[in-house]
Amino acid sequence: MSSERLIYLPLGGAGEIGMNAYVYGYGKPDQERLIVVDLGVTFPDMDSTPGVDLIFPDMTWLEERKDRIEGIFITHAHEDHVGAVGLLWERLGAPIYARTFTSNIARRKLDEKMLPDGIVHVVGAYPAVTELGPFKVSVAPISHSIPESGGLVIDTPAGRVVHSGDFKIDHTPVVGEPFDEEMWAEIAKDGVKALVCDSTNVFSPNPGRSEAELAGPLTDFIKDQPGMVVATTFASNIARLKTLAIAAKKAGRSICLLGRAMRRMVEAGIETGILQDFPSVISPEDAHHVPRENLMLIVTGSQGERRAASAQLSQGKYLGLSLKEGDTFLFSSKVIPGNERGVIRIMNNLSEKGVEVVDDRGGLYHVSGHANRPDLQKMHEIIHPEIIIPMHGEHRHLREHAKIAEANGYASTVAVNGTMIDLTGHKPSVCGFVETGRTYLDGTVQIGAMDGIVRDRIRMALNGQVTVTLLIDENDEPLGDPWCELNGVAELGRSSAPLVDVLEEDLSQYLNRADDKTLLNDDALEKELSRIVRNVCNNEIGKKPEVTVIISRLA
Amino acid sequence: MSSERLIYLPLGGAGEIGMNAYVYGYGKPDQERLIVVDLGVTFPDMDSTPGVDLIFPDMTWLEERKDRIEGIFITHAHEDHVGAVGLLWERLGAPIYARTFTSNIARRKLDEKMLPDGIVHVVGAYPAVTELGPFKVSVAPISHSIPESGGLVIDTPAGRVVHSGDFKIDHTPVVGEPFDEEMWAEIAKDGVKALVCDSTNVFSPNPGRSEAELAGPLTDFIKDQPGMVVATTFASNIARLKTLAIAAKKAGRSICLLGRAMRRMVEAGIETGILQDFPSVISPEDAHHVPRENLMLIVTGSQGERRAASAQLSQGKYLGLSLKEGDTFLFSSKVIPGNERGVIRIMNNLSEKGVEVVDDRGGLYHVSGHANRPDLQKMHEIIHPEIIIPMHGEHRHLREHAKIAEANGYASTVAVNGTMIDLTGHKPSVCGFVETGRTYLDGTVQIGAMDGIVRDRIRMALNGQVTVTLLIDENDEPLGDPWCELNGVAELGRSSAPLVDVLEEDLSQYLNRADDKTLLNDDALEKELSRIVRNVCNNEIGKKPEVTVIISRLA
Repeated sequence: MSSERLIYLPLGGAGEIGMNAYVYGYGKPDQERLIVVDLGVTFPDMDSTPGVDLIFPDMTWLEERKDRIEGIFITHAHEDHVGAVGLLWERLGAPIYARTFTSNIARRKLDEKMLPDGIVHVVGAYPAVTELGPFKVSVAPISHSIPESGGLVIDTPAGRVVHSGDFKIDHTPVVGEPFDEEMWAEIAKDGVKALVCDSTNVFSPNPGRSEAELAGPLTDFIKDQPGMVVATTFASNIARLKTLAIAAKKAGRSICLLGRAMRRMVEAGIETGILQDFPSVISPEDAHHVPRENLMLIVTGSQGERRAASAQLSQGKYLGLSLKEGDTFLFSSKVIPGNERGVIRIMNNLSEKGVEVVDDRGGLYHVSGHANRPDLQKMHEIIHPEIIIPMHGEHRHLREHAKIAEANGYASTVAVNGTMIDLTGHKPSVCGFVETGRTYLDGTVQIGAMDGIVRDRIRMALNGQVTVTLLIDENDEPLGDPWCELNGVAELGRSSAPLVDVLEEDLSQYLNRADDKTLLNDDALEKELSRIVRNVCNNEIGKKPEVTVIISRLA
Repeated sequence: MSSERLIYLPLGGAGEIGMNAYVYGYGKPDQERLIVVDLGVTFPDMDSTPGVDLIFPDMTWLEERKDRIEGIFITHAHEDHVGAVGLLWERLGAPIYARTFTSNIARRKLDEKMLPDGIVHVVGAYPAVTELGPFKVSVAPISHSIPESGGLVIDTPAGRVVHSGDFKIDHTPVVGEPFDEEMWAEIAKDGVKALVCDSTNVFSPNPGRSEAELAGPLTDFIKDQPGMVVATTFASNIARLKTLAIAAKKAGRSICLLGRAMRRMVEAGIETGILQDFPSVISPEDAHHVPRENLMLIVTGSQGERRAASAQLSQGKYLGLSLKEGDTFLFSSKVIPGNERGVIRIMNNLSEKGVEVVDDRGGLYHVSGHANRPDLQKMHEIIHPEIIIPMHGEHRHLREHAKIAEANGYASTVAVNGTMIDLTGHKPSVCGFVETGRTYLDGTVQIGAMDGIVRDRIRMALNGQVTVTLLIDENDEPLGDPWCELNGVAELGRSSAPLVDVLEEDLSQYLNRADDKTLLNDDALEKELSRIVRNVCNNEIGKKPEVTVIISRLA
């Protein structure tokens, strides 16, 4: 028994915000039985992942140990927690456990990939327990911004671990169960070994505010608007969808939801019975017949996504609906860092149409779904664990969270993705490093972040691309002149002649001088031709493009 | 006389923040004599301008009327106002007018392009006047964040125009002249036709704060830090450089400036005598010998620029200096929207090193250089013009600013780049639209934003690129099989075979079936081969790459 250990290993979500995937293990070293918590995605950007559709954690380590996986728990139905279920399930092959609504969403992800039934198991809320190998796991309701969000209570022979999941301390969360201090105190009363805890808002100094506080200001605001009101928020922020819908209803407006993701979320909520009190909505077709001042659209695209409803409405029509002077557009959301440009583009497009744009106005129309610093400290006090491990944050969040924990007398450490932590003792100790990384969904295929494919795209985007074609005849002599094609490269450089002419001239001259040995050697020839192209371009246009050399030998 | 008119035409800076360039004209329609105000740049981003070095306004309209340009005024030495002087001067060929320090910076830009002496004319401050054709122009000192910032007082036969330049109302601006309400009242007393006014901070509801307010908090902060302090801000925010340097001195630290742009700015300030009271600085070499607790670095890269000092220090050594646990890094700056990712990357790198990262803490360590909404209204009142034209802002800023002006009884309009406004009457009227746009500095050459070069780069980045090579023999028959090269494209798709094999197989099959007519027609063949590549890729990997087809015919 003494040689068995309890381990924690983040594979995603620790050292970044997004693509959450955490592993807990119990057993003899390297024979631990494992449970996985969440399989999330994160979103690409043009800077580092152009052309990529979705990003999720590299599962190689887990895949190689799939026979040791007892189960996969999904804490809640946000994309950064459930989004990779369909993409990764076949590699892991273990049963998935979640509450009703979360299971419904997970099931939809599996359906998209034509995966069979029977994978997802609906579990009840704490104190219901799922026993898996050495683990007894309960999903304990915790307030967030989506129904049935759960923290996990994981009992092992080495003690109890509380995995907070995403949470805030909200006693009136509009959807999902209110934060239940008594329940958490009950969970904590016999001692908790470790609290693995959300760190997202550790830099927010004030106590968080409740979702319910928005109802009044939003209703007043919507009432005051002379024309159509369009509000955008995250499709998966069901709490906000409901807050907005109820406010619209109170303001005497018909509600229309635009955007596939949003409609799907509400549909799942109604299907599972947890959104029965959601106000009735009308279709886009019916919305055409409603006077503007009686209409409210709730739409996707709060982060400026180019193809979402917000962006499309800002540019023209969307499903026949369009905005004009006198209408109002509300961002009931925060901009995720990095998405500012897209959001501002929408704001300016709307401004050109004469539409009033209103943002969260310092919190009047938006509250966060995560616990702020004082709330994190309150959670620490309630759970009062031996060890606090910060998760769900960039390095700076984890570090700050660990500092707070240590300042209050808890053992803590910063554990980024790939850091295996032994929780068996009174203090966390690093017991290994696992190779982790990112996998990309690129079109319909999965590629590794280190495969070089995206790197090549970035290089072409930064430098442009030149293709050189050369024919070599049966006597190993160049046949005609080499031929250049430019892609994304300036056509005129320092010389007055077109760059392509200068390139072809210089390549021809080189080939005329080249010795037989080089002409016989494709590799050497390719290298030389590339070098010449890069040098000529650098001279002419001050850039060194990527070069593809294609040598065709007539045999 | 009645047929002459006074016009205003923004070519850059109206409908965006950056690349300022404004034109004023007076005379008969289409024969107006012109003055240009500012020639600025804006900075590229990966989303829309990958690989581009700098962006500046398309000057085609002005270039075609260069014989009508009387002169170019530069209001101040920030890059978004002076940065394109070297790049554009040869096309415009008119004399440049600016105050001493601004002239020094403009002169450096011309020197970089080996342009002759005698182009830049130093002018004194208001009430000194430069007469140019129908214009009498004064550069009136106005507080901003750089020395000798000026508003322009432009007298014409149709009345006086005040062009605010970038400004804030700051009575203790640390560098440059304090805001002089009496002087502006004096300028306004005989009536002002139009105020063309900075709009940057129109959405900031509170009165702006003075640069001088930062001295105390910064000094206290620097004193409190146990290790080295590194502060970053814009290189061209000379006010902040001085505030930081003086605070460091008071805190008993030696000061070292890192970053070429920053050293050049301070050098120009000292050279022109306007920064004589800047504390003495030490070289990076000398900084090595100073104990960490006595050292303060002031560095470039506040916007997360990859090659600037901040980014390099966050990753390792820069000029032999490096950071470690116990050191402190201060962002004495605001993040420009769109730059968040780069800044956060630096923050996390620093966090990994154990360095404390501090940002502006809600204004304690940073104030803006632009007038907030109440200050704009104060400026309106002081100048009390007939017309207010908002400039220096995105569409949403211009629109908001125009709304405020109209609410207070001024005539106003939103004039974005390319909108020619007739200011002769009591109200502004649109008298034309001019084609405007952006020119890119790409490596060492200038390319048009609409040339398609950058568009091709973006497409390659999003979709990848495939090159198909095909040889056709003397009998117009394919010689061997076509050959594919993939760049930035996944190598394995739905089939188990490599994508390149599937492509070559399908292309060969097509060629075997192709009729002679198609084989004789390069365009038709290219189109068909491209289509096949895109279809096969879409089937195999769910993406349609860019395709280059190279057909070599053996004659």
